[in-house]
Amino acid sequence: MEESLSEELSLGNDQAEDRSRAQLSRPAVGRLSLYFRELHRLREAGTETINSRTLGQLVNVSAAILRRDLSTIGTSGRRGVGYDVEELLEQIGKVLGSGQRWEVVLIGAGSLGDALLRYRGFSRLGFTLTTAFDVNPARIGTVVGGVPIHDAAEMQARLSAQPPHLAILAIPAAQAAEVANQLVSLGVSGLLNFAPVTLKLGSKVAVVNVDLASELQRLAFAVQTQ
Amino acid sequence: MEESLSEELSLGNDQAEDRSRAQLSRPAVGRLSLYFRELHRLREAGTETINSRTLGQLVNVSAAILRRDLSTIGTSGRRGVGYDVEELLEQIGKVLGSGQRWEVVLIGAGSLGDALLRYRGFSRLGFTLTTAFDVNPARIGTVVGGVPIHDAAEMQARLSAQPPHLAILAIPAAQAAEVANQLVSLGVSGLLNFAPVTLKLGSKVAVVNVDLASELQRLAFAVQTQ
Repeated sequence: MEESLSEELSLGNDQAEDRSRAQLSRPAVGRLSLYFRELHRLREAGTETINSRTLGQLVNVSAAILRRDLSTIGTSGRRGVGYDVEELLEQIGKVLGSGQRWEVVLIGAGSLGDALLRYRGFSRLGFTLTTAFDVNPARIGTVVGGVPIHDAAEMQARLSAQPPHLAILAIPAAQAAEVANQLVSLGVSGLLNFAPVTLKLGSKVAVVNVDLASELQRLAFAVQTQ
Repeated sequence: MEESLSEELSLGNDQAEDRSRAQLSRPAVGRLSLYFRELHRLREAGTETINSRTLGQLVNVSAAILRRDLSTIGTSGRRGVGYDVEELLEQIGKVLGSGQRWEVVLIGAGSLGDALLRYRGFSRLGFTLTTAFDVNPARIGTVVGGVPIHDAAEMQARLSAQPPHLAILAIPAAQAAEVANQLVSLGVSGLLNFAPVTLKLGSKVAVVNVDLASELQRLAFAVQTQ
């Protein structure tokens, strides 16, 4: 599933507990992720309840859209009190999968990979970077951000016994397709792909693409249409 | 404008030449960017024409959606021949702003900034990274990817005479708001923000946010809903 290309997430799960997920558009998932980020900050600051207008202002979203998003995932505020911060964190976290632990491997420990290894924002969302792989002898055997970097030639051997849930591809476009196929055959369920290439992997694996040049193009487009 | 939060780009320009832009949804802009990337590859490989089915397959988009996108920007293929690769590149490039030269500065030359400075995909899309700024004495005075890294304290002085069109923020969340405000007051029109914080900058400046943790959350969500 090339998630970044579809207007809405393609949702195939019929189970009752997944109904609220199935109603969420891609922008709604992005907004939930932002509410979640702000709610974490609010909890750290000791805030216990918040109303829709204030939370909406923190992320530049109208109170009406925020209430709709939260109602879609089955939460509602209390009149005159607002939303319970703790409860909202738990509910959004459940929808976004942060209630469970996701094992993540990183393929490619160049400068982008290095930034990802040093990034402190993943773990509190339930993502644990366990291992990284690279082909550069100067990187192999080192530890960055607490994560060991192994020889890419050992990827298959090291991951086959207990494959990770997710993998991040921070490698050149020319290698991305082959490595992605290897990861899928190992049983990885989702790929975050930074390589500027469209991966063709069938429907068993989820793919989210982040193309840095495309993001600049989106910005240039937005500047022109202001 | 917090572009990443809106369901559709908010488009306010009434001029006739901007009508086709105004009809483009955010996913459509993303797809145009992908067609553009593949068309570049095709041109480099010597391909002169391509039909909608083949181009669609290269980016996992149906021929119908591809034809709709291209018709929105005023291009149509010829029956039995398809689209002219050169013409399509020019037309999409015009819509995405790649026909003009965009001067871009980078704020923050840590590991993510380093990856951006070394990234080779920007220049052919019309983006020129001219200068970077950092607070780390070990980085100041060095040149990465041909781009000089200056002291962040000199940002105002160095940019005020001829402000860049766009700026990339690859700095910690705690500094992002202040630096963003400085850049806007210097006259920067658009910000690509990697800091995990919502910027409040008014309607004069376009903002595209890339939150690496949110992208992993989107992936986890996609895996759960498969």
